[in-house]
Amino acid sequence: MKAEPVEASMDATPRKRTSREISVVDLFLRILGVIGTLGSAMAMGTTSQTLSFFPQATQIRATYDDLPTFMFFVIANSVACGYLFLSLPLSIVSIVRSSAKIARVFLVVLDTVMMSLLTAGASASAAVVFLAHEGNNKANWSPICQQFDSFCERLSGCLIGSFVTVIMFIPLVIISAVVLSRS
Amino acid sequence: MKAEPVEASMDATPRKRTSREISVVDLFLRILGVIGTLGSAMAMGTTSQTLSFFPQATQIRATYDDLPTFMFFVIANSVACGYLFLSLPLSIVSIVRSSAKIARVFLVVLDTVMMSLLTAGASASAAVVFLAHEGNNKANWSPICQQFDSFCERLSGCLIGSFVTVIMFIPLVIISAVVLSRS
Repeated sequence: MKAEPVEASMDATPRKRTSREISVVDLFLRILGVIGTLGSAMAMGTTSQTLSFFPQATQIRATYDDLPTFMFFVIANSVACGYLFLSLPLSIVSIVRSSAKIARVFLVVLDTVMMSLLTAGASASAAVVFLAHEGNNKANWSPICQQFDSFCERLSGCLIGSFVTVIMFIPLVIISAVVLSRS
Repeated sequence: MKAEPVEASMDATPRKRTSREISVVDLFLRILGVIGTLGSAMAMGTTSQTLSFFPQATQIRATYDDLPTFMFFVIANSVACGYLFLSLPLSIVSIVRSSAKIARVFLVVLDTVMMSLLTAGASASAAVVFLAHEGNNKANWSPICQQFDSFCERLSGCLIGSFVTVIMFIPLVIISAVVLSRS
């Protein structure tokens, strides 16, 4: 009669331990995400290039807020960074109490929404950076990156940082789903 | 001694029933998603406008594939449509067998990836449509929608269809998380 509960607890302990290990990976990914989004938002927010044309003594300055899409990029990354930072305590709760289902469901919902926001910002900016690099003959849009080369290079760098964070969000949602299915 | 299992089964039945009801909502959302993505992909894929200039007897034709971002939109919507269609049997399995955790985890993972793809396509296209409507003085990009008005109107319609499907994906991921947390 006593064999059953002992067997059950032996079965539960490694499960809990694995869930805890997965939750540690979750916390690690969130910390990386904070760094990635903060870096992307700051790098984009400080991007500018000034071109001087000596014969006419004129200057043209390109900044990120010349294009509303890049402003959206900075806002999306800042919001995601703030969320990831605030989600750290919830992630720690999941490590300490692996049975905290409410915290997990809450994280899945907000992770999904934030992933959408970050993907929207990154891909909208990628579309505009692509146009800035390649231009478009049919629409008669010239490739501005031919003049603003270092500006465009920095924009591309910001995009890479943001896309890495987007890709990192996918395991975050998967981790929550796996932990929920095990608990 | 016999009271316990009876109580447990009484507790489990309404839970299972609610999980089943949630799974029916999941199936319904997927069917709507198939229609939404198919409609968006087809509407975008068949968008074109020809402008005639009588004095010079020249014609300018604008089609969706003039801009690579719109081609990406069509591909993203087609892939998401195909996935949603193929996920219908898995969703039905979840209704019939509410304890099918593997099917649920599988759906969460793929739903998350597909939501990212669809968000990327829709927001990249939205950024380009915004430029087509408003243009950009600093980059010297003219608003092509002043000429191609009906072309731009149709593009905007396609975007709405796609964004509705993106928003619909959020409850799909949440439903899977809730069902997993209850099972």
